[in-house]
Amino acid sequence: MQARDLAEAFPSATMDTPALEAARRLATDRLNGLVVVDERGRPIVVLPATQVLRLGLPRYSQDDPALARVIDEAHADVFLRKLAGRTLSDCLSEQKGELPAVNEDDTVLEIAALMARTRSPVVAVVDRDGVMIGAITLHTLLDRVLGR
Amino acid sequence: MQARDLAEAFPSATMDTPALEAARRLATDRLNGLVVVDERGRPIVVLPATQVLRLGLPRYSQDDPALARVIDEAHADVFLRKLAGRTLSDCLSEQKGELPAVNEDDTVLEIAALMARTRSPVVAVVDRDGVMIGAITLHTLLDRVLGR
Repeated sequence: MQARDLAEAFPSATMDTPALEAARRLATDRLNGLVVVDERGRPIVVLPATQVLRLGLPRYSQDDPALARVIDEAHADVFLRKLAGRTLSDCLSEQKGELPAVNEDDTVLEIAALMARTRSPVVAVVDRDGVMIGAITLHTLLDRVLGR
Repeated sequence: MQARDLAEAFPSATMDTPALEAARRLATDRLNGLVVVDERGRPIVVLPATQVLRLGLPRYSQDDPALARVIDEAHADVFLRKLAGRTLSDCLSEQKGELPAVNEDDTVLEIAALMARTRSPVVAVVDRDGVMIGAITLHTLLDRVLGR
């Protein structure tokens, strides 16, 4: 069993994807991450769903958790409005580290090791040109190795 | 809207939960993490799904990604057998940092900031005694703030 056998169609995003659209896609499709690709369809980064949330948060609430406490509830409920007008490029500057992407012929062991190492429950599968042909989720991997 | 309004029933695990059972639960229920509680039901740690994978990986495949490459595919397919006989306590030693848990009256902003800060798509909700009464997932949070 190789990566190509586990790869599934998976939505991708670009640096220009509006943050609000990304958030809606994460919610609608129950995605745990977004694969951000360049103009040629090559993965640049896999953005964890929790990091899209960050875009909607006022700066002070991240710097000092105690300050998030003082905001009244109504305000808190609409914090995602802050997403409006922003794109994924605004939250990618601090996304460094190893890219969670595998080649078509990578094995289950390699995929699992990469997921564990990068802590990414989504890995992109790329062809020889580095172009994304699909993705593998942690749940898909578990289903297969557990024989479900 | 407060944490108690968003909390849903969520399965918990203990240090003694077999790793294989934990993996099956993650797959069956499409969970992104497991809340590990003590004997009184108080959360100790929220274990990301990717870190349960780690338990099934041979040590060498984590230390040196290139070595995972040399394992034949058949072997790779059954690596999860390594989970047998192990418990979650075996993978909790390195889980440090802030506990992704909120109080019942915490606001959406506080919950979102905690998810972003800890990078955990699951946060436990605890009562005044610190006992888990449910959990909030990133998708549930997004649904509510996006007005779906």
